[in-house]
Amino acid sequence: MLNVDMIDVSLDSFSRILHPYNTVLITSSSKGKSNVMAVAWIMPVSVNPPILAMSIKSERYTYKLIDESGFFVVNVPSFENEKEVLMCGRKSGRDVDKFKLAKFTIEPGRCVGVPIIKECVAHLECRVSNTFRLGDHILVVGEVCAAYVGKDVFDKMYKLDVHHPLLHLGGDTFVTTGIPSGKTKK
Amino acid sequence: MLNVDMIDVSLDSFSRILHPYNTVLITSSSKGKSNVMAVAWIMPVSVNPPILAMSIKSERYTYKLIDESGFFVVNVPSFENEKEVLMCGRKSGRDVDKFKLAKFTIEPGRCVGVPIIKECVAHLECRVSNTFRLGDHILVVGEVCAAYVGKDVFDKMYKLDVHHPLLHLGGDTFVTTGIPSGKTKK
Repeated sequence: MLNVDMIDVSLDSFSRILHPYNTVLITSSSKGKSNVMAVAWIMPVSVNPPILAMSIKSERYTYKLIDESGFFVVNVPSFENEKEVLMCGRKSGRDVDKFKLAKFTIEPGRCVGVPIIKECVAHLECRVSNTFRLGDHILVVGEVCAAYVGKDVFDKMYKLDVHHPLLHLGGDTFVTTGIPSGKTKK
Repeated sequence: MLNVDMIDVSLDSFSRILHPYNTVLITSSSKGKSNVMAVAWIMPVSVNPPILAMSIKSERYTYKLIDESGFFVVNVPSFENEKEVLMCGRKSGRDVDKFKLAKFTIEPGRCVGVPIIKECVAHLECRVSNTFRLGDHILVVGEVCAAYVGKDVFDKMYKLDVHHPLLHLGGDTFVTTGIPSGKTKK
């Protein structure tokens, strides 16, 4: 397909052109307070050592907790958790206990002092190794110290017949995956 | 769903837990040479100014061209381009002309001296503003100077009935999106 008709996208909306992104729940903890927030701008940046990066706003309560403790956990929800994830992205942990509101079950992490969300299918426990201010966000870089995933949903990669990723398209709209290419085309 | 049975994932495979990622084609150009490579580890990092970041290996030919010129273009393919994108991820522009192999039509960009791929549905033209070595990859940070998209496929966000994102699950496996959540659940 050749697109002859292109339209300009306003530069402050450019991010939509890169979506959809897998949306995850970031848990954090400091001085007896814990929080959970939704993040879509997160990705691996190195294989060995295992490092990921996520972009969040410095005024977020999660950033304060991560900045104080130096640790966070990435919890991977599924499409079935859409409503709870949207709430975690819209409300602030300064005002409400989002774990309670979402009815999430928390339990201790393995290598960092941060709770994990048991309803999620996978967890990456991280230690902050760098932060960079880039424009109006902070890039938080974390080295992964533990990675574990539900046995039923993963075998080298997600089994999409049992796990439905929660992909953020924009605004309040989430989508999930269709059929793996190998099954339709090869 | 509560996952009681968790399995450890080897740390150098942790990235699979964050997939699927939208896969894009990065075009670059320097001293009369141009190249295209596939990248999945790319995301927005700031809204205003508009900034994105991508993680690539320093030995990639694309990195050499970007390092020399200071510019690159993000071209967004669709699921229908799966075969060409896989080839662009597997072969090196040092050895072959991937534009020719993929039968891509190139035309000049608008604000940077880098060709764009006309078969793609959207384009983000970028000027490198920073690079950071993070583990075994380089994080290339670029400020977006032009963003445009096919009129038929986008209206504030992608219209998934006409555009099928190319999502990399792992290895040679790509998937695309299912039905937007709004249409199934609300």
